Amino acid sequence: MADAPIKPLALTLGEPAGIGPDIAIAAWLRRRELNLPAFYLLGDQAFVAQRAKALGAEIRIVPVNASEAVAAFAEALPVVATGERATAEPGKPDASSAPAALASIRQAVTDVREGRAGAVVTNPIAKSVLYRAGFRHPGHTEFLAELAAEDGRVPQPVMMLWSPRLAVVPVTIHVSLREALSQLTSELIVSTVRIVATELTSRFGIARPRIAISGLNPHAGEDGSLGHEEQTVIAPALKALRNDGIEARGPLPADTMFHEAARNLYDCAVCMYHDQALIPIKTVAFDDAVNVTLGLPFIRTSPDHGTAFDIAGTGKANPASLIAALQLASRMAAAKT
Amino acid sequence: MADAPIKPLALTLGEPAGIGPDIAIAAWLRRRELNLPAFYLLGDQAFVAQRAKALGAEIRIVPVNASEAVAAFAEALPVVATGERATAEPGKPDASSAPAALASIRQAVTDVREGRAGAVVTNPIAKSVLYRAGFRHPGHTEFLAELAAEDGRVPQPVMMLWSPRLAVVPVTIHVSLREALSQLTSELIVSTVRIVATELTSRFGIARPRIAISGLNPHAGEDGSLGHEEQTVIAPALKALRNDGIEARGPLPADTMFHEAARNLYDCAVCMYHDQALIPIKTVAFDDAVNVTLGLPFIRTSPDHGTAFDIAGTGKANPASLIAALQLASRMAAAKT
Repeated sequence: MADAPIKPLALTLGEPAGIGPDIAIAAWLRRRELNLPAFYLLGDQAFVAQRAKALGAEIRIVPVNASEAVAAFAEALPVVATGERATAEPGKPDASSAPAALASIRQAVTDVREGRAGAVVTNPIAKSVLYRAGFRHPGHTEFLAELAAEDGRVPQPVMMLWSPRLAVVPVTIHVSLREALSQLTSELIVSTVRIVATELTSRFGIARPRIAISGLNPHAGEDGSLGHEEQTVIAPALKALRNDGIEARGPLPADTMFHEAARNLYDCAVCMYHDQALIPIKTVAFDDAVNVTLGLPFIRTSPDHGTAFDIAGTGKANPASLIAALQLASRMAAAKT
Repeated sequence: MADAPIKPLALTLGEPAGIGPDIAIAAWLRRRELNLPAFYLLGDQAFVAQRAKALGAEIRIVPVNASEAVAAFAEALPVVATGERATAEPGKPDASSAPAALASIRQAVTDVREGRAGAVVTNPIAKSVLYRAGFRHPGHTEFLAELAAEDGRVPQPVMMLWSPRLAVVPVTIHVSLREALSQLTSELIVSTVRIVATELTSRFGIARPRIAISGLNPHAGEDGSLGHEEQTVIAPALKALRNDGIEARGPLPADTMFHEAARNLYDCAVCMYHDQALIPIKTVAFDDAVNVTLGLPFIRTSPDHGTAFDIAGTGKANPASLIAALQLASRMAAAKT
C-alpha cells in the first residue's frame, strides 16, 4: 500500500489578543531547523501580517486553501481564511474578535473531519472573552466535543498532558477539589482509562499500554486507614479494566509514582484530580508539555499554557509547547494512518 | 566567643526488623568519603554486630556513652545502650522488639534535651508493629511531640520535607483527602507558617525567608470559579501572616509552583495537603529528601522512607536519605548555636 499523501495540520488562531499568533509565527520561523510538520493557520492574512510586523518578524504570509498548505509551507506561513476578521490588539482582548476565534476552531474541525487536515492543533483561547460574546460551553475541549457530536451523541473528551518524560490523565478536571471528590466514580475511571488504553494503541502506536492508576488519598489510603475510596471506588474500576484485558496497575501512592525510575514502568499515569496529574508533569516538563484531547473522532493537541496577554506582541512568548504540540500531532497522525 | 564543643547526633535504631540498622552501618562506612558528622546509634551492640555480619560489613562497633561518641566515631560505629535488647530478624517484624525501638526514641530525646546530643535523627519505625505492642500515638512525630511536652503543653509539630532543590510543608498531613478539606482552617495555616518562618531563620540561617503558599483547588480556584477556599480560608491567613511581617506569597496555582525556575523564587512551599507537597519533592528528590520536624524544642530529621522489610539485611538499602538527614541535622545544629 502506498503511503497516504501527507496532510497539513490545521492550527487555530486562538485568542487574537493573546500569544497564539506570536507562537505560530515563531514556530514557522523554526520549521527548517526543527523539521516541523506542515501546518496552516486559520485566520486572516492581514491580521497575521500586522502581528508579524509588531514582532519584527521577517516572514512571508500566503493565503491558501488547505490543499495547498503543504506545498506552500517551506517558503511562507500558509493562512487559510475563515471569513471572520480579527481586530484585537495584542494584550487587549476584545469581544468583537470572538467570532474570529470561534470560526477558526469550527473550520479546523471541519477540515480534519472532511480529510483536508491531519489533525487539529489549537492555540489558547480566553474563555472570559468568549463568554462576553455569548459562548456557552464550559471550555475549549467541551466545545470541540460538541463539534464532534454524531447523531446528537457527544463523545467523552479525555485530557492528557504529554511530554517525552511523562504522560498524565486526570479523571476529574476543572472542578474544585471538593467537587472532584463528588464526581469520582468507578464508572468515570473505567470509561476514562478505556479511552486512554485504546488511543495509546491507535494513536501512540503502543501495542500493550501500561497504565498506572493513582490512589486518591495519601499513601493510597494505607489499607483504608487514610480514606476508603481506594477500596470502594478505585479497586472495582481496576478489576473491571483488567477484565477488559487492560494492563492497569494501582491504586499507587501518588507521591512515589513520578520520579524517574517509577515513570519508566508505565506509559501513562491516570490520576484522580487535576493537581495530582498536573503537578508532576509541570514539574518535570514545564516548557514542552502538550495538551492532547483523547476520545474525539480526530486528533487534537494544544500547547499547555494560556493566552499570556501580558507578553502578547512582545516577542517574549516561548513557542516550545506549540512546537511540541505540532510534532506530537504529526506523530499521532502518522500512527493513525 | 569560643565555638561550643561539637555534639554528636543521636541516631535511633528504628524498627529493628527494618533497614534502619542497615543504613546506619552503610552511612558510617562512608563517613570519611562524605565527611559525615559524628553520630551514635541508640541500640545494643550485639544486635548491631549481628546485622553487620549479615550484611558482610567489616566494621568495628564500640559501646560508648554519648559523651565519648565524637572521639570514637572515626574508628568505630559508636553504640549507646538503651537497656532494651532487640531480637527481631531482618524482614521479620516482631512485637517483642518494640520496647527497643521505643527506648531508642525516648533516649534520643532525653540526650538532646539534656545537651548530650546536637540533634535527633530517627530511623523509620513500623507503626503497625508498635500498635501490637501497645503504642498509642498516631505516629512517630506525634510521639516525639509528646516527649517534648512541657507543663502538659504539647507543641505543634510541623512536617517539612527538605532537599537541596525544594523544601515543602503540608498543612494537613496523614488524613484522607476528604478529612484534609475539613481540617483546613486559616488558623492552622497561620500557626504552621509561623513555625516555618521562625525556624527557617533560626535553624536554616535564612534571615528573611520567602514562603510560597499553594491554593487548594485547580488554578488556585480561578477567582472563585473552581472553589472558594482560596478566598475564604487561604487569603485571610496570608493577610494575618503579612501583618506579622512574614514574606508569604499566594495562593499560587499548585501545578506551576514546582518547576525549576519557580522553585528559585522561594525557600519553602507550604501546601494544603499531603500529596500536593509530597508529589513534587518526591518527583525531584526521590533518593535524598529529608523529613524534618519543625516546632519541637530540638532538631529532628529523618530519612524520607519506610522500614523496607523486603530488603532489610540484604545490603540493598540505599543510605542516601539517612546520609542527607545526618548532614542536614548537623547543619541545623550549627545554625542554632
